[in-house]
Amino acid sequence: MSHWWTQACREPDAAGERQALARQARLTKPAGALGQLETLAVQLAALQGREMPSADRVAITVFAADHGVAARGVSAFPQAVTQQMIANFAAGGAAISVLARALGARLEVVDVGSLNQGAVPAGVVDARIAAGTADFSRRPAMSAAQLEQALAAGRAAVVRAGPVDLFIAGDMGIANTTAATALACVLLGAAPRELAGPGTGLDADGVSRKAAVIAEALALHAAHRHAPEAALARLGGFEIAAIAGSYIACAQAGLAVLVDGFIASSAALCAIHLNPAVRPWLLFAHRSAEPGHARLLAAMAASPLIDLGLRLGEASGAAIAVPLLRLACALHEGMATFASAGVSGKSPC
Amino acid sequence: MSHWWTQACREPDAAGERQALARQARLTKPAGALGQLETLAVQLAALQGREMPSADRVAITVFAADHGVAARGVSAFPQAVTQQMIANFAAGGAAISVLARALGARLEVVDVGSLNQGAVPAGVVDARIAAGTADFSRRPAMSAAQLEQALAAGRAAVVRAGPVDLFIAGDMGIANTTAATALACVLLGAAPRELAGPGTGLDADGVSRKAAVIAEALALHAAHRHAPEAALARLGGFEIAAIAGSYIACAQAGLAVLVDGFIASSAALCAIHLNPAVRPWLLFAHRSAEPGHARLLAAMAASPLIDLGLRLGEASGAAIAVPLLRLACALHEGMATFASAGVSGKSPC
Repeated sequence: MSHWWTQACREPDAAGERQALARQARLTKPAGALGQLETLAVQLAALQGREMPSADRVAITVFAADHGVAARGVSAFPQAVTQQMIANFAAGGAAISVLARALGARLEVVDVGSLNQGAVPAGVVDARIAAGTADFSRRPAMSAAQLEQALAAGRAAVVRAGPVDLFIAGDMGIANTTAATALACVLLGAAPRELAGPGTGLDADGVSRKAAVIAEALALHAAHRHAPEAALARLGGFEIAAIAGSYIACAQAGLAVLVDGFIASSAALCAIHLNPAVRPWLLFAHRSAEPGHARLLAAMAASPLIDLGLRLGEASGAAIAVPLLRLACALHEGMATFASAGVSGKSPC
Repeated sequence: MSHWWTQACREPDAAGERQALARQARLTKPAGALGQLETLAVQLAALQGREMPSADRVAITVFAADHGVAARGVSAFPQAVTQQMIANFAAGGAAISVLARALGARLEVVDVGSLNQGAVPAGVVDARIAAGTADFSRRPAMSAAQLEQALAAGRAAVVRAGPVDLFIAGDMGIANTTAATALACVLLGAAPRELAGPGTGLDADGVSRKAAVIAEALALHAAHRHAPEAALARLGGFEIAAIAGSYIACAQAGLAVLVDGFIASSAALCAIHLNPAVRPWLLFAHRSAEPGHARLLAAMAASPLIDLGLRLGEASGAAIAVPLLRLACALHEGMATFASAGVSGKSPC
């Protein structure tokens, strides 16, 4: 039986790309003078299948979950912060809440498995799979059935987002850089010491402890590292798997994705391993301060738009890059052409 | 007699900076997790003298002028493009026109000396000093009196901009990367071959010719290179001097500046040489693709916000960075604090 996440993705539209490229060449500026914003407009045109792309309608989904490995002391913040931040998202006080309001973007928060045993806060989608993953330094983080649930939670969020121009996924989960780093080590063939970073603010000793815990986990699950489903189930998190599922669903639906930072990029690489045709649908927002991020980006041949030392997650880096996409589209659509403005072209060399 | 441009600048406000720093530490995110956006909010707070800074009200002024050195074949575009682009700004079809509309920013275009002998297009401010500068590879680009006029044209634009949160200056002028590179060579003590670049699109031979023309000019004006006024008059352009004057006027009025790319940065370094107290008022938007820009930025210890391969001028790079300032301010003002949201702080290490 083939799982939904291995099924075909849409192909970017060659005609839209061609039209957008031709339009860029006619606009009143030296060829290439708008740099990456030109590439971006053309890429979006290919993904949206139209000469004039748009990034007006943006859907942001933050997936939140807890991680059993937090018990190993791998985070600078107590585990209770996952639930507290879910409440903060719901109340509108988190960074991503502020950014979504500023951008006029739809923000949805999905609890895919926090430790909270009571009702989820009003406005939060309840898709809890379990009260956190198991400690993956001792046993698999989740079962195969739980992985399916998490991937499906990602897909369901894309369905709920409806017809938008751009989908953004974010993460919340104390200890999730530990899970993302473990996955990155497996998928990149790297050692924990090369990729482990401070996350929310570990000191050097803390980073060493975190790397040691990841090394234990990699040894425990070594036999399963070549199958992406197994790696994601054994070392991932519910929110990481949900993000991967959302990206695959976007690629299958033909919806452009703007990838956030380190956690989201680990999910993106998982998604590409599960289904390589996902890759063209992913635009990359930023280079995070988390040291493993550069390696993940390189493995995906990604050229992120901004590099501002961000390391917050929650989709915040992607949200911060949205105005760049919008301005790229505005320039692409709104600038005069050499012909319409009566501006002379480049002199013959 | 001391000229207006050497007179005292305002000092950034230490109290505003302190309050903003303290606020950043209370917001619901790990310390420093918003990277350069945190620094930016604090810098703006210092410049605007208030805990909650803003980048809502933005004034953009594009200064346009022609350059006698264009006769030496140093640009990929014909000189007529300066006037054609002034008309394109006025008609709303240029990149900066589109960006200003998208940002809700005030856009003013000032002709400080194009070759146009007729009426300026409707909506353009007529501040023409002469029909272009003289060819500085043969004689001084402008006289001392013309330099005064150009600096004053910059100051007058700041006065017209009125009470805004942020001032942006842009440039238009075929061959103005040649002037900016010549100035950069003098101010940085660099050789033309190190700094000369393609501008609007010269090929390698064209860049070599441009470097040779600049080298001739540097030899001709060698005796005057240590006086910033003389360097600016002999090697600059009317729009470059006007931008320098506008930055000095902003610093004297206590108005934050967002510096555009290579041309604007050469003007910024001139302004700092004329009046070192200008420096704290300058925020830097982007790293241009023009190769000399990195050296100019390093000389001013500038950390620009974006690096997207832009090389258009017209203030476009600064305009593209404006949403980052706005989001930095929105996050600074709108995020909940640990106390208000009931979120636990960092664990004791």
